[in-house]
Amino acid sequence: MNQGSEWELHPQLVQDTMTIGDLPLSRVLASRDAGYPWVILVPRRLGASEIIDLGAGDQTMLMTEITMVSGALKALTGCDKLNVANIGNMVAQLHVHVVARRKGDAAWPKAMWGAAPAQNYTPGVLEKFLQDMRKAVGL
Amino acid sequence: MNQGSEWELHPQLVQDTMTIGDLPLSRVLASRDAGYPWVILVPRRLGASEIIDLGAGDQTMLMTEITMVSGALKALTGCDKLNVANIGNMVAQLHVHVVARRKGDAAWPKAMWGAAPAQNYTPGVLEKFLQDMRKAVGL
Repeated sequence: MNQGSEWELHPQLVQDTMTIGDLPLSRVLASRDAGYPWVILVPRRLGASEIIDLGAGDQTMLMTEITMVSGALKALTGCDKLNVANIGNMVAQLHVHVVARRKGDAAWPKAMWGAAPAQNYTPGVLEKFLQDMRKAVGL
Repeated sequence: MNQGSEWELHPQLVQDTMTIGDLPLSRVLASRDAGYPWVILVPRRLGASEIIDLGAGDQTMLMTEITMVSGALKALTGCDKLNVANIGNMVAQLHVHVVARRKGDAAWPKAMWGAAPAQNYTPGVLEKFLQDMRKAVGL
């Protein structure tokens, strides 16, 4: 968890992602794992680890941002199922995964956390995804 | 998915759970897996598979019910982390897991879907949990 007095992104999330941009509540990230189109929302609230650590207004905003990102991801990928989750057993900073799952992907039909080794993106492909997501959510 | 004209609980969820009760939007279930205190919210909306299949009012209500159940589960169990997730790769009917995780539980720190075989509750223990949850969420 952040030990300072201002919110900053957890170092593990810095390492594992690239930044799409900031929505009103959340920093929006894309995972560097090419196994799945995989977005992560991180509410910029110091010390929050659980959804219930947020105030009621932020909880509603989080749902708004989850559905905005979900709709964009579904439209961009034509995925078979969205997986939306706050787990955070290893990285305590509150973060919500929104992942586009496809029949036959590396972990299908299982939950994909820890299910298959991370894959590398072909150069340019993740950057294109970031741009597409920015356009789709108005960033 | 439900093929009829009225919402009914997916047979797999019937098999895997006991009923806590109905909140305004969701049927609230408890998993029969004793590995974790594990609640499942199922919005009573015919044909919904994704959170984005719900209308905006239902999405807000779902967040309200998730946080109500999360707070109750945290208070009852003193868990180390809540895991909150809509996955649904195998059971397409929209359902949200709210699971109380504890350091050293059967799957810790991994996500617990598919991580460890389901365990049986000692007789009476799940029924006690149902009663405690009903009281905690006002059912």
